[in-house]
Amino acid sequence: MKNNYKEIYDRIAKLQCALQKHSIDAAIIAQKIDLFYFTGTLQQGLLFVSNEGEPLLFVKRDFDRAKIESPLKYIYNLKSMNNLPQFLNEHNYKTQTIAFELDVIPYNLYRRYSAIFPNAHFVDLSTEIRKIRMIKSKTEIEKIKKSGELIEESFLELKKNIRIGMKEIDIACELEYLARKKGHMGLVRMRAFNQEMFFGHILSGTSGLLTSYVESPTAGEGQGAFFSQGAGDRVVKENEPLSIDFVFCYEGYLVDMTRIFYAGEPSKEYRNIYNVAKEIHQTIVENALPGITCNEIYLKTLNIVSKHKLEDIFMGPKGKQAPYIGHGVGLELDELPVLAKNIDDKIEENTVFALEPKFFIPEVGIAGIENTYLMTDKGVLLLTKYSDDIQIII
Amino acid sequence: MKNNYKEIYDRIAKLQCALQKHSIDAAIIAQKIDLFYFTGTLQQGLLFVSNEGEPLLFVKRDFDRAKIESPLKYIYNLKSMNNLPQFLNEHNYKTQTIAFELDVIPYNLYRRYSAIFPNAHFVDLSTEIRKIRMIKSKTEIEKIKKSGELIEESFLELKKNIRIGMKEIDIACELEYLARKKGHMGLVRMRAFNQEMFFGHILSGTSGLLTSYVESPTAGEGQGAFFSQGAGDRVVKENEPLSIDFVFCYEGYLVDMTRIFYAGEPSKEYRNIYNVAKEIHQTIVENALPGITCNEIYLKTLNIVSKHKLEDIFMGPKGKQAPYIGHGVGLELDELPVLAKNIDDKIEENTVFALEPKFFIPEVGIAGIENTYLMTDKGVLLLTKYSDDIQIII
Repeated sequence: MKNNYKEIYDRIAKLQCALQKHSIDAAIIAQKIDLFYFTGTLQQGLLFVSNEGEPLLFVKRDFDRAKIESPLKYIYNLKSMNNLPQFLNEHNYKTQTIAFELDVIPYNLYRRYSAIFPNAHFVDLSTEIRKIRMIKSKTEIEKIKKSGELIEESFLELKKNIRIGMKEIDIACELEYLARKKGHMGLVRMRAFNQEMFFGHILSGTSGLLTSYVESPTAGEGQGAFFSQGAGDRVVKENEPLSIDFVFCYEGYLVDMTRIFYAGEPSKEYRNIYNVAKEIHQTIVENALPGITCNEIYLKTLNIVSKHKLEDIFMGPKGKQAPYIGHGVGLELDELPVLAKNIDDKIEENTVFALEPKFFIPEVGIAGIENTYLMTDKGVLLLTKYSDDIQIII
Repeated sequence: MKNNYKEIYDRIAKLQCALQKHSIDAAIIAQKIDLFYFTGTLQQGLLFVSNEGEPLLFVKRDFDRAKIESPLKYIYNLKSMNNLPQFLNEHNYKTQTIAFELDVIPYNLYRRYSAIFPNAHFVDLSTEIRKIRMIKSKTEIEKIKKSGELIEESFLELKKNIRIGMKEIDIACELEYLARKKGHMGLVRMRAFNQEMFFGHILSGTSGLLTSYVESPTAGEGQGAFFSQGAGDRVVKENEPLSIDFVFCYEGYLVDMTRIFYAGEPSKEYRNIYNVAKEIHQTIVENALPGITCNEIYLKTLNIVSKHKLEDIFMGPKGKQAPYIGHGVGLELDELPVLAKNIDDKIEENTVFALEPKFFIPEVGIAGIENTYLMTDKGVLLLTKYSDDIQIII
C-alpha cells in the first residue's frame, strides 16, 4: 500500500461528502493541481468520483507513471473520452448531475465534456473543492513548515550578499539560485485565470509603489511591459526600503513572506509606520483562534490602521488599494481563505494563510511584513520565522 | 507616438480582417498574452475590437500603467463590466456575434460575458488568433534572435561547469542562474490548459526515457510526483548522454533548443542514431521553403527515420511516442504551427518554429537535437547556433 493511501482516500471522502450535501451524482476533476490533490499524480486525464464508492482515475498520459504515483485502486488507460459514459453506465455510476471545476475549465473543454455527457447537468463545485483544499493534512503541514524553514535559510544567506548599488534583478537572481539550491521546486503555481508569478517581488524604493495586472498589493516595475511585475533594473540606494516578497515552494507546497531591508537608518516616521505592521501581526497572533472569520481578522487589522490614521496608504497606493490583507497558500498561491471585508468564511484548524499588511508611503516605498501562519487548536503558529525587524544592510 | 504604435495597429488590422472574413461583428480579447500581443500591455481588462474602426481597451488594473504601455488611442478605466454593452451601443458598435478565445477562457468567465451580452452569439476565434500570432513581425524576430544568441552564450558558459557526478538538478540551477543573469525573463509561458514548464528538461541517461503529463516528447523524473518533469536527483555518469532541453525567454520571446552532452566516448551505435537527427535538420534546412506544409516536413522527417529503421524509438519510448516533431514558439512555448502528420497548415515567411527530432534508446537515453528556426523568403534560418555536435564533457 502506498504511503499516501490514507491521505488520498481521506480527501476523496471529503469530496464525496460535498457531493452528497449538494445531491450531486459525481464529480469530474480535471485541473492538474486538483488532480494531484485528489489522486497523488499530475498525469493527464480525469478523476471520476461518484458520491459513493471507489473513485476511478482515467489517464491519458502517462498511464504507467500514474499507476506508480497514485494509490487509487482503479486506474485506467484512457484511450478515448467518448467511451467514458458507456463504461460508467456499465458499472452503474450515475451521471445526471456532474460537478466540475468551472472556475478553471476552459470553455471548449467544457463543451467537449458536455457533448460526451449530453444528458448530464454540470454544476460548479470549485468553491467546495477549494474549501476542502483549504484545510491541510499533517503531511501537507509538514511540507509547508519545511518550506518556511527553507525560506528563512535562504534569507539568512541572502542578507550577507545584498549591497547598495545592486540592481533588483541581480538580487532576484541570487535569491532564486539560493532557493533552488535549497530545494525550491521552481514553479509558483496560481489558480486564477491570467495570473502568474515568478518567485516573488524584489522592489526597491518607489518601484514598490507600482501596481500591475497581478492580484497582489505590490507588483513593481518588472523587466518591461512583457512581464510587468517583479524585479527590474532599479538600483538599491541608501535611505530607502528594499521590499523582498518571496514565495518558497517545497515539494509543491508554498509559503509567502515579505521582509524589508534598508541601507542606512530608517527615519522615525518610517519606523513608526513599519511598527504598525508589526502591531497588526502581533494582534492577530495574540487574538486569532480557530473559527475566527476572515472579516473579523480584516476588521481587527483595519482598526489598528485607522487608529494610526494610515488608511490612505494601506494595501496599495491611494486609489489603487487591494481589498484584502491576506490569502490562503498551499499547492497554489491564491488559495482560500481570502482575508477581506465581509468574507465570513471561518478560519478553522489546519488552515494556512499569508497575512501581508503593507503601507505604501508616497515617494518612499513599502513598509510592511508578510508572514505565513498555520491555524492550530491553540491559535496561529508562525511558519516564516525569519526576523521581522527591519534588516539593516550596507 | 509610442514606438510600438504601428506594430500594434498592424496586428489589430489582421484581427479585423479575420473578423470580416468570418462575418463576425467584434472580438473580445481577454487572455493576458493575446492582450499583450494586441495592445502592448498585460494589464487586466479586455480589448474590444470591432470589425472596423478603432479598438477599445478597457482596463481594470492597472489603468495608468496600461496608458503608458499601450499605444492604443482609446483606453478606458473599467469600473464595471455591466456598463459595457450600453457604452458600446451608444458608440454604435455591433455585438450580435462576438469572437472570443474559447480555448482558454474559463467556463465561469464565459458565463459572465454571456450574461452581460445576453443577445450576443459567441464564437471561437482562438485558432485564427493563434494563426495571426504565428507570423512574426520584424520586432518580434529581433527579440527571438536575441533569445537565440543568449541561449548560445548560456550553453557556452554552462559547458565549462558540467562535471560527472553532478546531479541533474544542480546543473539546472547553474543554467537557470546563467540564463537569468543574461536577461532570461524567468517565466516560460504556455497556452494549453494544465501545461507548465520551468526552463526546460535536464535529463541524464535513462531519465530521458520517462514521459509525463507535459506535452513534450521528454519529461524526465523531475523532483517528485508534485512536479514530475525536468531535472531530478539523478547523477550524471560516464558513458551516457545528458540531454539539455532549454527554453530561453528574452523580453517575452522564446527559443527552444536541445543539445546532448556526453561524458566519455559515445558508442558507434549512439553516434549513428545521433547523426540521423543531424541528417533530419540538414534536410529541412536544405529543402524547406515558405509554403511548405507541416505535413510535408513531418513526412520528410519520417522518411529519414524509416530509412534508418528507427521508427520504434522516434519521439518517445515505444508505445509512448509523441505524434509531432516540432512546434511554433513566440510569446508562448506551444504556439502554431504544430509539425505533425496530416496538418496541412503552411509555414509561411516569418514563422518561427522548433524542430526536435529525438530518439529514445532503451537503457541508454536520448539522442537528438532541437533547434529553433525562422522561415525566411529564402528558406529556414537557424536561430539557435550553439554547436550541434555531441558535447564531450569530463
